[in-house]
Amino acid sequence: MSHNTFGHLLRVTTWGESHGPAIGCTIDGCPPGLRFTLSDIQTELDRRRPGSSRFVTQRREPDEVSVLSGVIADEDDPAVMVTTGTPIALHIDNVDQRSKDYGDIAKQYRPGHADYAYDVKYGLRDYRGGGRSSARETAMRVAAGAIARKIVPDMKVRGAIVQIGEKAIDRSAWDWSVVERQDNPFFTPDADAISVFESYLDEIRKSHDSVGAIIEVIAENVPPGLGAPLYAKLDTEIAAGLMSINAVKGVEIGDGFASAALRGTQNADEMRIGPDGKPVFEANHAGGILGGISTGAPIVARFAVKPTSSILTPRRSVDRDGNEIEVVTKGRHDPCVGIRAVPIGEAMVACAIADHYLRHRGQTGRI
Amino acid sequence: MSHNTFGHLLRVTTWGESHGPAIGCTIDGCPPGLRFTLSDIQTELDRRRPGSSRFVTQRREPDEVSVLSGVIADEDDPAVMVTTGTPIALHIDNVDQRSKDYGDIAKQYRPGHADYAYDVKYGLRDYRGGGRSSARETAMRVAAGAIARKIVPDMKVRGAIVQIGEKAIDRSAWDWSVVERQDNPFFTPDADAISVFESYLDEIRKSHDSVGAIIEVIAENVPPGLGAPLYAKLDTEIAAGLMSINAVKGVEIGDGFASAALRGTQNADEMRIGPDGKPVFEANHAGGILGGISTGAPIVARFAVKPTSSILTPRRSVDRDGNEIEVVTKGRHDPCVGIRAVPIGEAMVACAIADHYLRHRGQTGRI
Amino acid sequence: MSHNTFGHLLRVTTWGESHGPAIGCTIDGCPPGLRFTLSDIQTELDRRRPGSSRFVTQRREPDEVSVLSGVIADEDDPAVMVTTGTPIALHIDNVDQRSKDYGDIAKQYRPGHADYAYDVKYGLRDYRGGGRSSARETAMRVAAGAIARKIVPDMKVRGAIVQIGEKAIDRSAWDWSVVERQDNPFFTPDADAISVFESYLDEIRKSHDSVGAIIEVIAENVPPGLGAPLYAKLDTEIAAGLMSINAVKGVEIGDGFASAALRGTQNADEMRIGPDGKPVFEANHAGGILGGISTGAPIVARFAVKPTSSILTPRRSVDRDGNEIEVVTKGRHDPCVGIRAVPIGEAMVACAIADHYLRHRGQTGRI
Amino acid sequence: MSHNTFGHLLRVTTWGESHGPAIGCTIDGCPPGLRFTLSDIQTELDRRRPGSSRFVTQRREPDEVSVLSGVIADEDDPAVMVTTGTPIALHIDNVDQRSKDYGDIAKQYRPGHADYAYDVKYGLRDYRGGGRSSARETAMRVAAGAIARKIVPDMKVRGAIVQIGEKAIDRSAWDWSVVERQDNPFFTPDADAISVFESYLDEIRKSHDSVGAIIEVIAENVPPGLGAPLYAKLDTEIAAGLMSINAVKGVEIGDGFASAALRGTQNADEMRIGPDGKPVFEANHAGGILGGISTGAPIVARFAVKPTSSILTPRRSVDRDGNEIEVVTKGRHDPCVGIRAVPIGEAMVACAIADHYLRHRGQTGRI
Repeated sequence: MSHNTFGHLLRVTTWGESHGPAIGCTIDGCPPGLRFTLSDIQTELDRRRPGSSRFVTQRREPDEVSVLSGVIADEDDPAVMVTTGTPIALHIDNVDQRSKDYGDIAKQYRPGHADYAYDVKYGLRDYRGGGRSSARETAMRVAAGAIARKIVPDMKVRGAIVQIGEKAIDRSAWDWSVVERQDNPFFTPDADAISVFESYLDEIRKSHDSVGAIIEVIAENVPPGLGAPLYAKLDTEIAAGLMSINAVKGVEIGDGFASAALRGTQNADEMRIGPDGKPVFEANHAGGILGGISTGAPIVARFAVKPTSSILTPRRSVDRDGNEIEVVTKGRHDPCVGIRAVPIGEAMVACAIADHYLRHRGQTGRI
Repeated sequence: MSHNTFGHLLRVTTWGESHGPAIGCTIDGCPPGLRFTLSDIQTELDRRRPGSSRFVTQRREPDEVSVLSGVIADEDDPAVMVTTGTPIALHIDNVDQRSKDYGDIAKQYRPGHADYAYDVKYGLRDYRGGGRSSARETAMRVAAGAIARKIVPDMKVRGAIVQIGEKAIDRSAWDWSVVERQDNPFFTPDADAISVFESYLDEIRKSHDSVGAIIEVIAENVPPGLGAPLYAKLDTEIAAGLMSINAVKGVEIGDGFASAALRGTQNADEMRIGPDGKPVFEANHAGGILGGISTGAPIVARFAVKPTSSILTPRRSVDRDGNEIEVVTKGRHDPCVGIRAVPIGEAMVACAIADHYLRHRGQTGRI
Repeated sequence: MSHNTFGHLLRVTTWGESHGPAIGCTIDGCPPGLRFTLSDIQTELDRRRPGSSRFVTQRREPDEVSVLSGVIADEDDPAVMVTTGTPIALHIDNVDQRSKDYGDIAKQYRPGHADYAYDVKYGLRDYRGGGRSSARETAMRVAAGAIARKIVPDMKVRGAIVQIGEKAIDRSAWDWSVVERQDNPFFTPDADAISVFESYLDEIRKSHDSVGAIIEVIAENVPPGLGAPLYAKLDTEIAAGLMSINAVKGVEIGDGFASAALRGTQNADEMRIGPDGKPVFEANHAGGILGGISTGAPIVARFAVKPTSSILTPRRSVDRDGNEIEVVTKGRHDPCVGIRAVPIGEAMVACAIADHYLRHRGQTGRI
Repeated sequence: MSHNTFGHLLRVTTWGESHGPAIGCTIDGCPPGLRFTLSDIQTELDRRRPGSSRFVTQRREPDEVSVLSGVIADEDDPAVMVTTGTPIALHIDNVDQRSKDYGDIAKQYRPGHADYAYDVKYGLRDYRGGGRSSARETAMRVAAGAIARKIVPDMKVRGAIVQIGEKAIDRSAWDWSVVERQDNPFFTPDADAISVFESYLDEIRKSHDSVGAIIEVIAENVPPGLGAPLYAKLDTEIAAGLMSINAVKGVEIGDGFASAALRGTQNADEMRIGPDGKPVFEANHAGGILGGISTGAPIVARFAVKPTSSILTPRRSVDRDGNEIEVVTKGRHDPCVGIRAVPIGEAMVACAIADHYLRHRGQTGRI
């Protein structure tokens, strides 16, 4: 992965700071002839958008995306864009940046933030809103993911919250239809968890604190054969994609860390011949990937988001001039930034798979 | 990451199968003027070498490495090699491949193995010993890591087993000197865990089963400022490097998955001014990385290795011709392949950091 | 080189079509702390801008560039932008696209154009103005080059026309001050060539024809040591950068093709010790590059631009439906597109050198 | 292009110095299921091999290649290797290195050589035989090219000398069958040029001098649609591949530099409908590439090789210690290194096209 580009044949380059005039990305290597509408992208962006509930930042960003290149209008339906195979530029104006909120922290190093690290790396930093490390950057990932989803025929990539802070969902109650329910601001697939999360996060928020989360992303209808043995393992690239999201500190595939405690007899997913004569797996401890290559079983990835570092509780720190200080991060922040990470995680998984779909087709011609 | 290359300015390309004549790698982008001896590499290889205890595969591979390019002999001490800045080729002959062990599984898909995935991807496979997915490939990572360690002045990268199967170490007993003790075949830093692991793995092995493990790698004296905000986060590249090891299914940095359950007030490592006038962190939940950039605190990474898929217990599977079968994997396999993953994990962390050391110097000139 | 990105540590990704709403680029990997003003970029863009004389296209594009990310304002002088080390997005709106000019050629393959090639590659094409192959894309190269020039201290990159059609300049009359003279619409360094080119191109234009050109770019004050022996030879990357400009069909370094006819005794630039005690070259047949690495002598590159394919003279061709037709390309085209290639060539040379400056610093730390 | 790797989906990484124990390369991304024999590679290597006539270096290198990974033996014919899709490692031992020939030039900078440039870049150098800049490295390109040729069905890539020093061939006498004639040590397609070159080079050699050459490579049966508009133009990547050969100083496609003097009416290859109903070009000024994309017409590339810098005539130079000296390069050198560049050029063109074949299939699925 390059500094601001991810992917190999399908390459997404993002740019923009939280408090600059705009953010954007360029999607290079997209196959020609894909058809999509602006609302295909906007729908995904709306799922990530701030301000949608009291549990996410109150910054008001409409996140209206425009497509500046790489498409032509369909002859019959001008609302349909057809990709031409040239780079697709997506652009979103920032409309609600309030730089003054950040004035007093220009010289302070907020604990848990990248302030100190940026300063020591670059010798200077854009202190407004976390610069590149703002959650705002992730809008472009979601937009790019909306197009990546079109590349792999029939692929379905869905995510859900499985844990917020100390509260885990009941996996036996998993119901995908719950995730997108209007009264569910948490992307939880367990209906009973909604009220649990609500009261838990209200308490967190009122105590001027924040909390982390774990997100699970499942990709279905992924053709077998995508990926490669080692340095381009499908797991490697999904892990890299997810870990590249700000605040993510852990990634796992299939049973992940739990597989360390399993025995070989438990962990090796046994195979049978399915009703259609093709091999099927009787379990999916591997999360749909063996030897770095997709098997046709659902791809299962999970990632951990640390608690939002911007909190209203004072923390001890230092400033640029070497003074010991206390920092309180004002501004409008998510009490659990992990919630909005669900569509972002989906996007990164979709991009990693779509990239490997093209690479597999390129190397082998077998798709 | 490319298919068989990792790194950007420091690029390592590996080749070779477990049962071919040799394995090797090319290390490109290495700074000129580094000095090392063959034994600097050999020492690391010996730590990973099979056959060193009854808990690892009994395959006998001396893993004698030769350096075929990219160095000149030091004028005063011909045993010292000096890098010239051109690509360094490392080569290890395979001496104990027994392909006949694999003959009867040429058409079988071993559960938990990549056999089926390779076949569906490539339309054919080198069935001898798992091809590229053999643990043998990792020798080249260890060799490359030995050179990467020379690139970052004073950097120390050490790893340890923190869990084998269901048995976790007592972290309060952590003692690095234990890890390299002759009577410790497990790289555990907890002396009391040695006998626990022994009896546990003896039981596993006798029951013709295997088990997974969790490894922790800590890099000290890493200069602050290495990494980059998003797609080249130091965490991202460490995660990619570790996940690219065969059998790895999860990676985390600092508190990792546990950080999901933390509150912002706990997780944000507070800062003070240290005795030397420089900022110090009072805790290291972040694992030495904030916003993708090293902070100067120790880098902490952990990864999970699944149980060895090659086991003597029969498992249900299918073959190439669509028959339902039972598979027993003969051959000489590690009951816990995770043990030998310790030096491999160290090597990948060393390579990722060294690469970012060069990239940081390139972009900023600040080192 | 990737499909729409060039460079390695300094990476420029361009997007946009001639007849879409805008064009733009992202410059990734730029060192932090560089200082520039908008006019530093605009001045370069104005040198390439259409409509500046009767010898270039009459399309009116102000080419006003905006900087959307990657910089902060200098504290003392807000007109000065300071790079932060994060990706710099540049954006230029298209204001004078007249798509109707292209309506009747939507199905025609214009000889010398990429129409047929695009169609056969992508299965469809954006027929408006040549899509990505329009000269308009090169504005972003020039903008990126303006920033690249800031990376290598004291580097000076200048270009000049040395041949238009059959008319070559008199090299003995070379005077750099002539190149930027207001009454010189040709970037020629030979004052006497101005009137020759004027009458020659007037004749070409009136005969509804076009003609090619050869451009020479010279980079001075390039530190020795930039480049690498083979696949990243400084010559290789300059050649790739220049050849990636639309309509370019040949590239040479130093004596280039003429060196084939030289003898080794003539071609090997002899060395002496200069007044400052450093090695100097007594000739520069090598164009400042030996073994792919800069020597400190001026870098000399030359490239050939084919005649504009859009001409008012009818040419025989075919259309998408398999009919044999005659094509006349209306619209506003340069009679010699090579003229405006001068600042473009400078930009590509500047970018290639700046990229290698950062790579050299990264690998060796010797700068 | 990376420092020692070329290609994108088909990636070749070379290593080795002229005077080390061996040279080699790794070919990554090769499609699975290709079938070849060792002699397919050896035949190509023999065409480049030194010592085959008095007009090339008398170094005796059998250049026997071995294949160390990435293939399995065909079940029916064990001499046939079948690619598995994993990295193919090729290895050639150096058998005739005579380092003593180079002892006295360890501190001298040979004019025209990279000695000074290496020293200033790396701070040290492997002075034996030019290190990486030795023509020996090109053996691995030829070997890789032999495999690349298998990737594009029916593709035929052939090269020929069109000029040696001041002596150009008569293009109207072009006869491919002449090129491989046993009595033709020059790869010339013009039978009458053989004796001209013989006496010309004998004179050059006896006067202790050397001379350059121009080589033309033509690739036939290249499917239309390969390449990409700008930074991955097929011309760009062919140019980069050819320019990356040591001693190459110029590259052109189709009419190349001559196209600068053409008019648009001459240069735009007109199209008609061929007998099979498909578009055909009535001329090929474009060299088979328009807008960076292959058109189906033959790909035509030409490159210039400078005269061998190692000559027996004394040249003025300096040494590491700042002394002004005279240098005579002993050793066994080609009087015209360009002759052996013919199969090398073919290999680079084959690799560039094969890489784009896979990339085109990956992005578009249209092949």
